[in-house]
Amino acid sequence: MAKNRLIYLPLGGAGEIGMNTYVYGYGPAGKERLILVDLGVTFPDMDSSPGVDLIMADIAWLEERRDRIEAIFITHAHEDHIGALGLMHDRLAAPVHARAFTAAIGRLKLEEKGQDPNVITEVAAYPETVEAGPFRVSFLPVSHSIPESAGLVIDTPEGRIVHTGDFKLDGKPQVGEAFDPLLWKEVAKPGVKALVCDSTNVFSLAPGRSESTLIGPITELIRDRQGMVVATTFASNVARLRTLAQAGVDAGRSVVVMGRAMIRMISVSQAAGVLTNFPPIVPQEDWGTVPRNDMMVLVTGSQGERRAGSAQLANGKYNGITLGIGDLFLFSSKTIPGNELPVSRIMNRFSEMGVDVVDDSNGHYHVSGHANRPDLEALHDLMKPEMLIPMHGEHRHLRQHAMIGEAKGIASLVVPNGAMADLSGKRPKIVEYIESGRIYLDGNVLIGAMDGVVRDRIRMALNGHVVVGIIIDEDDEPLGGAWVETHGMPDPEGEHSLADLIEEAVEYQLSRASDKTIMSDDALEELIQRAVRKISKDVIGKKPECRVMINRLVGG
Amino acid sequence: MAKNRLIYLPLGGAGEIGMNTYVYGYGPAGKERLILVDLGVTFPDMDSSPGVDLIMADIAWLEERRDRIEAIFITHAHEDHIGALGLMHDRLAAPVHARAFTAAIGRLKLEEKGQDPNVITEVAAYPETVEAGPFRVSFLPVSHSIPESAGLVIDTPEGRIVHTGDFKLDGKPQVGEAFDPLLWKEVAKPGVKALVCDSTNVFSLAPGRSESTLIGPITELIRDRQGMVVATTFASNVARLRTLAQAGVDAGRSVVVMGRAMIRMISVSQAAGVLTNFPPIVPQEDWGTVPRNDMMVLVTGSQGERRAGSAQLANGKYNGITLGIGDLFLFSSKTIPGNELPVSRIMNRFSEMGVDVVDDSNGHYHVSGHANRPDLEALHDLMKPEMLIPMHGEHRHLRQHAMIGEAKGIASLVVPNGAMADLSGKRPKIVEYIESGRIYLDGNVLIGAMDGVVRDRIRMALNGHVVVGIIIDEDDEPLGGAWVETHGMPDPEGEHSLADLIEEAVEYQLSRASDKTIMSDDALEELIQRAVRKISKDVIGKKPECRVMINRLVGG
Repeated sequence: MAKNRLIYLPLGGAGEIGMNTYVYGYGPAGKERLILVDLGVTFPDMDSSPGVDLIMADIAWLEERRDRIEAIFITHAHEDHIGALGLMHDRLAAPVHARAFTAAIGRLKLEEKGQDPNVITEVAAYPETVEAGPFRVSFLPVSHSIPESAGLVIDTPEGRIVHTGDFKLDGKPQVGEAFDPLLWKEVAKPGVKALVCDSTNVFSLAPGRSESTLIGPITELIRDRQGMVVATTFASNVARLRTLAQAGVDAGRSVVVMGRAMIRMISVSQAAGVLTNFPPIVPQEDWGTVPRNDMMVLVTGSQGERRAGSAQLANGKYNGITLGIGDLFLFSSKTIPGNELPVSRIMNRFSEMGVDVVDDSNGHYHVSGHANRPDLEALHDLMKPEMLIPMHGEHRHLRQHAMIGEAKGIASLVVPNGAMADLSGKRPKIVEYIESGRIYLDGNVLIGAMDGVVRDRIRMALNGHVVVGIIIDEDDEPLGGAWVETHGMPDPEGEHSLADLIEEAVEYQLSRASDKTIMSDDALEELIQRAVRKISKDVIGKKPECRVMINRLVGG
Repeated sequence: MAKNRLIYLPLGGAGEIGMNTYVYGYGPAGKERLILVDLGVTFPDMDSSPGVDLIMADIAWLEERRDRIEAIFITHAHEDHIGALGLMHDRLAAPVHARAFTAAIGRLKLEEKGQDPNVITEVAAYPETVEAGPFRVSFLPVSHSIPESAGLVIDTPEGRIVHTGDFKLDGKPQVGEAFDPLLWKEVAKPGVKALVCDSTNVFSLAPGRSESTLIGPITELIRDRQGMVVATTFASNVARLRTLAQAGVDAGRSVVVMGRAMIRMISVSQAAGVLTNFPPIVPQEDWGTVPRNDMMVLVTGSQGERRAGSAQLANGKYNGITLGIGDLFLFSSKTIPGNELPVSRIMNRFSEMGVDVVDDSNGHYHVSGHANRPDLEALHDLMKPEMLIPMHGEHRHLRQHAMIGEAKGIASLVVPNGAMADLSGKRPKIVEYIESGRIYLDGNVLIGAMDGVVRDRIRMALNGHVVVGIIIDEDDEPLGGAWVETHGMPDPEGEHSLADLIEEAVEYQLSRASDKTIMSDDALEELIQRAVRKISKDVIGKKPECRVMINRLVGG
C-alpha cells in the first residue's frame, strides 16, 4: 500500500498578515485526511481592492476535497482567524471546534449568515483532546490580545506538531490566560516534530512588553486632564478595553463605551465568563447625567475606518458628543500598514478642533499582541522542535523567521500560500504547488480576485471611463451620430468638451468605415475604441477605459 | 493714508508635508506688495486622488493679484518646493530668484514645459540681497538633503523675518554647506520679528543625526557581502547618493547609477560645482565589464514608484540586471506615509527572490533631512524670535510646534493654508480666510480638486459603473429595449447576468412610465437610475454609479 505522509498547506496567512487558513493532512499522497486551522479574512485597500468588502483565501482546493475534511479548528476569535466562518463554512460543511469564547463569537458569525451555529463544538483547554481522523488535537492556552487564544497541539502518526496561533509571552495579560512556560515545556516533553509559528513581529528586536505595563502610564496621561477623554483600540482587544476602562476609573472617570462591535465584544466576553473584572459601564440612557469632564469614552475606529466612532468624532458629532479644545483622544493601537492616511486624516481633524491627540509613537500607550524576535527565540528554545515552519507573516517575515531558525540548527522552511510541504521526513520539503489565491466579498457576491471586476474598477479610477453608443439601422448604416458619455475625465481647455471631441472623432471614423467593419460588432468596437483612446490622449493626455454600445435596428 | 501691514499667507505646505507655497505681503490692507516663497507639488494617492499625476496649491488668489507680485523665491530644489514652477509660472509671470544649483534645476523644469528659463536669476548666498518692493531678501545657507538649501532672510519695514525653508542642524552634511550657528546668530542680531519654521519632525524627540554617521555603518553592511548590492534613496538626495557611492567604493565595489532622475541630479550637481567629490561612476557601456559581485548599484524608487528601478528589479529585470539569492537591496530612505503598501510589496517580491532587504527600521542606514524637536528648540533659542509661525507640516505638526513655542514664551500661531496672518503687531493674528485648495495635473489638464472629476473616479472604483442606453422614437415611444453595460461590477450567482437583470428592470419601468416622464430627459434619467440602483442593491448588494444615454429619434 501507498506510503502515508504528513502535509502542511497554507491557503492564507503565509504571504500576508491576515486571512489565516492552514491545512494539515495525513495519509497516502492525494488521499490524506485533512484538518483546517482557522478561516479568516483580511481587509481591502484602495490601491489593490477598491470597493471590496472583505478578502478571504480561495478554498476551492479544499472544497473539492470536502469529503476528506475531518474537522475545522479555530485558534481565536480575531477576524483574521474566524472572519470567514459565516461566509465559507457551508462550502466545507465540516464540524468546527473552538474554545468557549471563540465558539460564542463563531456562532454569532454563522447566525449572521443564516448558517447553523450548532456546527461548532466547544472544547476545553489542553489536555482535553479532539479526535479528527489521524489527528488528535488540543487547545493550548496562550497569551494574546483576545480571550482564550490558543495554540494547537496536533498529534499525528509522524509526531507532534505545535501550531502556535497568534501569541505573545505575557505573564500578566490582564484578560485571558498568562503564558505558562511550564505548560508549554510539558507539551514539548515527548518531542516536537514541527513548530508552526507566528512571525508577525520577527523584525521587532526588543522583547515584547506586557499588557500590565500600560495601565500606569495611561492613568497618568489621563489623571490631570480637564476635558473629555476618548480612547480607541481594536474592538476585539478586550484586555486593552479593560486596561483603558480601569485607567479611566483610576483617574476618577466614568466609563462610557460606544460602537456596536465594542459593546458586543464586551458583553460576549462577560457572558463567556472570560471578562469578570470590567469596571462598571454607564448605560446609554444615563450618558447625559455624566459631566463630560468626568467621562472616559471608549470608541471604535483605531484604524480610521470611515463609519467608526473616531472618524465620526473627527467629522463633528457622534452619539451627541462633540470634541473640542482641551479634550484628549488616545489611539491605544498600532496603525496597520495601509491605514496611515485615514488615521492621520483623523488626527489632523482633531488637531484643527483643538483636541490633543496621543498615539503609540512613544510606546507608552500600546503593546503588541504578538511575540517579538527575542520572544520567538525563547519559544524555539523552549519547544526544541525538529522543524520550524514560519506562518502568519508576509514573505519577508517568514523568510527572516526561517533564517533565525536555520541559524539555530532547526530545519526551517518558508512555505508560502499554495505550497504543500511534506513534513514526514527529517527536513520539511515542498512537494507541490496548488492553485491558491484570494476571494473577494463584493457587496454580497463572492468573486475571484483575478476575475477582472476589481481590475476594471482600478482602471476606471486611474484612467476614467468613456461610453460610446451608436445605432446601426436596417440598411447597416449608422443612424444619427454617436453619443458619448465621459465619467471621471477632465475636459480640455477651450470651448469643446471632451465628449464633443470624441463624438466628432468617432463619427469621422464611422464615415470612413468599410461595410465589412460596420457589419462586425468586434471590428466596430475596436475601431471606435482606438479612435476614443487616440483623441483622448491627444487632447487631455489620458487613455480612458472605453465601452462601446452598438444597437442594430432590425426591420419589422 | 491707510496703515501698512505685514501679512503671511500660506497657500500650500501648512496643512500637509508637500506643495509648499507661501505668500508674504506688505502695504495697505488689500494693496500689499507680494512675494512668493516656493512653488511646490505633492503626490497623489489611490485613496483620495487616483489617476492624478501631480498636486499643486490653488494659486487663483495670487493670479488675480499678479500685478502686485514683486518676485518669487525658491529655497531649494526639492519637488515639494520647486515642482510646480514649470506648470504655474506663466500664471504669475514674476521674476524668480534662487541659488545656482536650485536655479539650474528650475531652468530644466521651465524648459520641460516650454517656458522661458531666463526668468530665473541666480543669487549668491547671504549677505547678497535681492530688492523686491518693500522686501529685501537674501538666501541663508542651511543643511538639508539637497545642495544649496537655504533659509530666507526677509527684511521688511516691520522687521526681519527668517523663513527657515527645509533644514536640519548638520555640522557634516557631506554635500552642501554645514549648518553654521555663528552665521545664523549674526542674522538674528538685529532681532528676528518672526521665525517661520519647518515642522516636519516636531514629533521626533531625539536630536537629529548627521549624514556623516551613515557611511561607516553602510560600508560595514556591504563589506562582506558576496552578491550584488543595490541601494535606493530619493534621487534628489545628492548627499546620500554620495554616501552610498563612497560606501560602495570603500567596500571595494564599482559604482553604477541607474535611473534618469538620479543620473540627471548627479550631473546637474557636478555642473553646478556643488558635488565635487563623487566617486567615479561606471559608464553604461562598461556595465558589462564589471563582475556583478563587485557592483554597487544606485537606483530610483525608494517610495515604491511603479516605473522606478526598485519596482522593475522586483518584477524581474532592469537594465539587464536580475537580482537573486545572496544579493542585497538597501532602502536608504524613509517610507513616506501612504507608500507603505507599494514599498512592502517590493520588499516581499525581493524576499521571494531570495534577496536580502535592509531598510531604515534600525536607524543605521538613513537619517532625516529635517530638524527633530530638540533641533527646532535649539534654533528657537538661537534666533530668539518675537513670533513663531510653524510651517511645512500637517495641522497636527503645526499645532505641536506652536505649543512648544508658546511654552517658551514666543508668540506662536498656527496659520493653516488659506489663512492670512497679520504679523504687524506684537502677536500674529489671523485677519482673513481666502479661498484656497488644490489643483490636480490630470494627464495634461489642470483641474480643481473639487471639480468632481476625481470624485467620480473614486465612486466608480468603489461602486462600479453602469450605463443604460435607450432610444425614444419619433412618437415618443421607447424603441427596442434598453441596453446596459456594466463595468467593474460582479454578476450575481445564477444564469442571469447583472446587465440582463438591469435591462429587465429598466424596461419594466419604461413600460409603466407616463408620457410626461418619457418626454422629459431628467425624469427619464431619474426613473432609470433609481431602477438600476434598486435592482443592483437587491441582487448584488451594491449601488453603482449610473449614467443614462437617451437618444431621441427625430422625424426627417
